[in-house]
Amino acid sequence: MRATLLYGAGDVRVEDVADPKIQNPTDAVVRIVLSCACGSDLWPYKSLQPTDTPRHMGHEFLGVVEEAGAAVRGIKAGDVVVAPFVYADNTCVYCREGLQTSCVHGGQWGVGGVDGGQGQAARVPHAEGTLVKLPVGEDSELLPDLLTLSDILCTGYHAARTAGVVPGDTVTVVGDGAVGLAAVISAKLLGAEQIILMGRHQVRTDLGRAFGATDVVAERGEDGVARVRELTGGEGSRRVLECVGLKEALVQSFGAVRAGGTISRVGAPQYPEVPFGFGDFMRNITLTGGVAPARAYIDELMPHILDGSITPGRVFDRTLDLEDIADGYRVMNDRQALKVLIRP
Amino acid sequence: MRATLLYGAGDVRVEDVADPKIQNPTDAVVRIVLSCACGSDLWPYKSLQPTDTPRHMGHEFLGVVEEAGAAVRGIKAGDVVVAPFVYADNTCVYCREGLQTSCVHGGQWGVGGVDGGQGQAARVPHAEGTLVKLPVGEDSELLPDLLTLSDILCTGYHAARTAGVVPGDTVTVVGDGAVGLAAVISAKLLGAEQIILMGRHQVRTDLGRAFGATDVVAERGEDGVARVRELTGGEGSRRVLECVGLKEALVQSFGAVRAGGTISRVGAPQYPEVPFGFGDFMRNITLTGGVAPARAYIDELMPHILDGSITPGRVFDRTLDLEDIADGYRVMNDRQALKVLIRP
Repeated sequence: MRATLLYGAGDVRVEDVADPKIQNPTDAVVRIVLSCACGSDLWPYKSLQPTDTPRHMGHEFLGVVEEAGAAVRGIKAGDVVVAPFVYADNTCVYCREGLQTSCVHGGQWGVGGVDGGQGQAARVPHAEGTLVKLPVGEDSELLPDLLTLSDILCTGYHAARTAGVVPGDTVTVVGDGAVGLAAVISAKLLGAEQIILMGRHQVRTDLGRAFGATDVVAERGEDGVARVRELTGGEGSRRVLECVGLKEALVQSFGAVRAGGTISRVGAPQYPEVPFGFGDFMRNITLTGGVAPARAYIDELMPHILDGSITPGRVFDRTLDLEDIADGYRVMNDRQALKVLIRP
Repeated sequence: MRATLLYGAGDVRVEDVADPKIQNPTDAVVRIVLSCACGSDLWPYKSLQPTDTPRHMGHEFLGVVEEAGAAVRGIKAGDVVVAPFVYADNTCVYCREGLQTSCVHGGQWGVGGVDGGQGQAARVPHAEGTLVKLPVGEDSELLPDLLTLSDILCTGYHAARTAGVVPGDTVTVVGDGAVGLAAVISAKLLGAEQIILMGRHQVRTDLGRAFGATDVVAERGEDGVARVRELTGGEGSRRVLECVGLKEALVQSFGAVRAGGTISRVGAPQYPEVPFGFGDFMRNITLTGGVAPARAYIDELMPHILDGSITPGRVFDRTLDLEDIADGYRVMNDRQALKVLIRP
């Protein structure tokens, strides 16, 4: 089959790789119908040293089960399924607590002999725990929306949930990327009254307004913080959802958050140290979040997509064939596209 | 009156200062019956540059109201009262949420013309909001226990509460100082089943066991972390209460905490940056806590002292007259004493 490999910064290739086969009775093989590229794929795309052992890319996909191993219950050939961005047995002590990202038998797509998601098919370890059946056909118009259950919608929702968003809340979302926009959707789902979106790409912030943002702050740094404070009666925002991953965005989050408030970080931190000393200690700021256990939220979020009340698939503003995925990385990296849908 | 002034590192003096008087109708004047020295007093005691404008020291006291301003309701001359370690109006938007440390009219003892607590008396701003009446006489044997409501008991409790300790929980307390021991008491009050105390001063850890610690880990750093993991089935501790304030203690906390777990920091951080990058992000660690709004917890904790079910006053292992308070700072700094009670 064909799959996406990264050989170094900017060097994305689609090549022939081994067809996936059942290796363990808990595996399934899924023919991929839709996948996409993620903001987090851009980190290695920008920085990977040239290598002869390329990375298998992609961690968001949905498709049709071709074969399920003998031990897999509840999932069978022909089912349309979505995969969360890590696989997990969904039965271990962490999974039972909704922390499938720490599953003792779980792992990442594209690592250790497991296929990536940007290909024609994938072997899915722990298929019963990992895959979630979608009650639609593979020709459904909802597939782009449902694909966001794989990562970005659940990641935005993880930010809102761990930040403790409650009805009537004031929420600031830092970052107008796909995850930031999903965080806007999520804050609204949880009843936030004021949702301030910090971003300066108008096409994206317009979509953010359509998703529920009540205010947009285009300024960054101290000016952006001042504007958020102005919009929140001088106090700052009770919840800040940091959806970027750069230190500047986190510093901005600390500036924007109200005393006693919570910052939830779902942008993968590209920095080792957090500026969180005596001053913010005196203000009782909480820093929470982390990598999102998407699997924990899929069942809860799917109905909102099925009934049309949320339309997170609108973040996809370009569709490419798998063979052209290198273009997809390029346009996302150049910010010509927000998020690229891939049809294998 | 006599009061404690710090002129520089190691230079504690008891001197005559102006007698406190009502300045605003919301003030009260309290004759101090008991006060004490705090671990946090040791930071300036170790480091303050010599100065001609000395710091007025002390932020923990209880005493008898001598006079209450015309606007003070519910507190009158003759009442025995305890003061939390910051004053607050207890009516502002932050106070109503239980965050009196961010009170818009509040402030610190010993700053801006307000008396410190290590003296014979104090003017109490916003007395109605700040002071809590104690239902005992000024000769009560419970006074040392009740004095801990001023800071350390509430600070330990803030750690346990913000960490989200629930019945059956596993809690690790980092630090065997007075706040760490109060955190042990608090974790037990909230129903923790396993309470691991990290400390290496046996007199203190023995008291910790008496307060409810189920395990003591004397090792530090990586060895200490390994021991906590051993005691928690390899996973680490769901809640870690960091009661020291040094970066080493926080690093140890990150090592000891379980995936999905919470570190609550109540040791005033003596460092500007927190090592909290990609690895702990992937483990979904939360960092919370901060300076404790003692006022928010006094009403809740006092009954446990009055009925004898907790005895936090046992942390006081030395009693000195105010005139000898310099000795108190010295023995606490040299770790010859855990916490020193001061009788003016």
